[in-house]
Amino acid sequence: MFELTIAATSAWARAGSLVLPHGTVHTPCFMPVGTQGTVRALSPHDLRAIGADIVLANTYHLHVRPGEDVVAELGGLHRFMGWDRPLLTDSGGFQVFSLEGFRRVDEDGVEFQSHVDGARRRLSPERATEIQWTLGADVAMAFDHVVPGGADEATARDAMDRTLRWLERCARRHHELADGPDRQTLWPILQGGTHSALRREALQRVLDLGAWTGLAVGGLSVGESKELMYRTLADLEPRLPAALPRYLMGVGFPEDLVAAVERGIDLFDCVAPTRMGRNGTAFTPDGVVNIRNARHRSDPASLDPSCDCETCTSYSRGYLRHLFAAEELLGLRLLSLHNVRYLIRLAAEMRRAIAAGDFPGWAEAWRHRYLQPELA
Amino acid sequence: MFELTIAATSAWARAGSLVLPHGTVHTPCFMPVGTQGTVRALSPHDLRAIGADIVLANTYHLHVRPGEDVVAELGGLHRFMGWDRPLLTDSGGFQVFSLEGFRRVDEDGVEFQSHVDGARRRLSPERATEIQWTLGADVAMAFDHVVPGGADEATARDAMDRTLRWLERCARRHHELADGPDRQTLWPILQGGTHSALRREALQRVLDLGAWTGLAVGGLSVGESKELMYRTLADLEPRLPAALPRYLMGVGFPEDLVAAVERGIDLFDCVAPTRMGRNGTAFTPDGVVNIRNARHRSDPASLDPSCDCETCTSYSRGYLRHLFAAEELLGLRLLSLHNVRYLIRLAAEMRRAIAAGDFPGWAEAWRHRYLQPELA
Repeated sequence: MFELTIAATSAWARAGSLVLPHGTVHTPCFMPVGTQGTVRALSPHDLRAIGADIVLANTYHLHVRPGEDVVAELGGLHRFMGWDRPLLTDSGGFQVFSLEGFRRVDEDGVEFQSHVDGARRRLSPERATEIQWTLGADVAMAFDHVVPGGADEATARDAMDRTLRWLERCARRHHELADGPDRQTLWPILQGGTHSALRREALQRVLDLGAWTGLAVGGLSVGESKELMYRTLADLEPRLPAALPRYLMGVGFPEDLVAAVERGIDLFDCVAPTRMGRNGTAFTPDGVVNIRNARHRSDPASLDPSCDCETCTSYSRGYLRHLFAAEELLGLRLLSLHNVRYLIRLAAEMRRAIAAGDFPGWAEAWRHRYLQPELA
Repeated sequence: MFELTIAATSAWARAGSLVLPHGTVHTPCFMPVGTQGTVRALSPHDLRAIGADIVLANTYHLHVRPGEDVVAELGGLHRFMGWDRPLLTDSGGFQVFSLEGFRRVDEDGVEFQSHVDGARRRLSPERATEIQWTLGADVAMAFDHVVPGGADEATARDAMDRTLRWLERCARRHHELADGPDRQTLWPILQGGTHSALRREALQRVLDLGAWTGLAVGGLSVGESKELMYRTLADLEPRLPAALPRYLMGVGFPEDLVAAVERGIDLFDCVAPTRMGRNGTAFTPDGVVNIRNARHRSDPASLDPSCDCETCTSYSRGYLRHLFAAEELLGLRLLSLHNVRYLIRLAAEMRRAIAAGDFPGWAEAWRHRYLQPELA
């Protein structure tokens, strides 16, 4: 349980499978985000139909509403949201540090204001671990201190040190709660901003703390440039243990998935495909398309002729544009469905390219098409 | 083609099947409303899964946006919206008379302001017929003049007379357009408010005008009391030709469906199930349930244990309440799906009760349960 089997590698890119209590995840893998226990505009049936292996849910949001006790009374998170495949919950760290309004960090944890009712609440490493245990996802994340992308080295070191101290407390609490080895695992999160020395130190200290079943890279895609994110990943890769799945948190643009897989990453999550879908923006092999554009008005072509999703096999661009012009709910759903399917198919394509042994060549060809400016 | 076969009757209630170019409709039948070429929050796939035989779309809305020419360029309304079963389009009459803002009726037709861009537009019997022919639904409706429920007899007579003159023009234009007998039929709409003498006169004059394939009762459920609506239907029933399908426009509350089937009606449409669903209100055999109510917070029960829809077989009331509390799109969809499925199952139940030969007894038992105030 919780073991990653590497089936193929090509340069630094890896293809494999990760066994979790509720099923097997094929890597590289994109995890759709179900912030409040639902992937916005999509149903579990939709997610199964488009081949989602695993869904991420947000501990902070579910803690605030409806509360983990309600989720537990309703049978735990899988049963609650009608999803019987693997789930991963974030720890609430990133969410709390992204909140507007009051927030106070001390060594014990974070005090913050609920975005729902403004009430003061606390999250600590122990509480975040307990909440996640109660929710019952296959993978829980350690409670971390996230700093913005531009943070200086002193700020980044302070947050990294705290994240490491909190990791020990999360691991202790998780060990106390775990009633068997096969129900939930806990993954640490590496912080350190874009400071390579800090990242290396964070990695070494995390590995010194224990035997983990996975590693997450947090604190990227939070405002820094793409180049700096890619460089940070490239610097880490040779130091990452090959046996552990590597999860790059909060990343979901197609070009970033490809670049990160080139740098040895296995797992991703992001709200981008659903959020962009709700804005009328769709991923296609030739770059993004804004379906609201008037040029789609009478276009009988499908959004992406190479895609097998319900949206692309059933509707014209003209109809999709109409749904957005008329502010119909079905439009939000159809573009969200396609965008998530696009990333799941992209991950599958990457697995095939890795198995075929020339991931760098595939990635270059992919970029050549996706990023060609004249069609974007 | 366009023929109704009556399979069973019980008192005035009738069960049968109506053959249309895109398939057979089983009556009594509830038609979900796809105002802008989409049943709000539902996909054609959803509608097939819950057994919808036929969908209604609104001529006024599709004319204003995206325009019938765009729909035609995209292959006609069936192809446009991805629905290969029967479609019925209303004529735009009711819609135009429901609009806020400028509206001027003369003998030629109606001038009105588009709700989209405020532009002045005209609809006439000929234009409404042409637009519907271009859209290509199985059943088109004659362009009518609708007056509010409380209209006095003179106002109601004026509108009824005009509707009859317009009906002749619709029929003439439809006959000119029809390139074959089997593509689209045109149904007249009976007006006359709640004035029985006017209703009888309207019926007789409509029947004198030609050989129709169906009859619609318009101008009810527009503000008058339920009792007055039921009485108006009961007065008409013995005079309606048995061979023609009878469509009561704009009616969709469960108790009204049952009462109207008791009074010989075969077809219904209404936005109620989807609109109420988006508001968190669900039909159940024990009356309506407001899922936002705090008492559902930790309720593991399904919305309607007797229902076979995705909503009722997959989720708890607690989860559905959470989706509404958290303002998640999936909630709108799941309650809309259930409410439409509820009416489709109600229609099927009525067909079985009619076939079993005791519709009045079934209706009384149904009302006893649905309307019991302590559970409503």
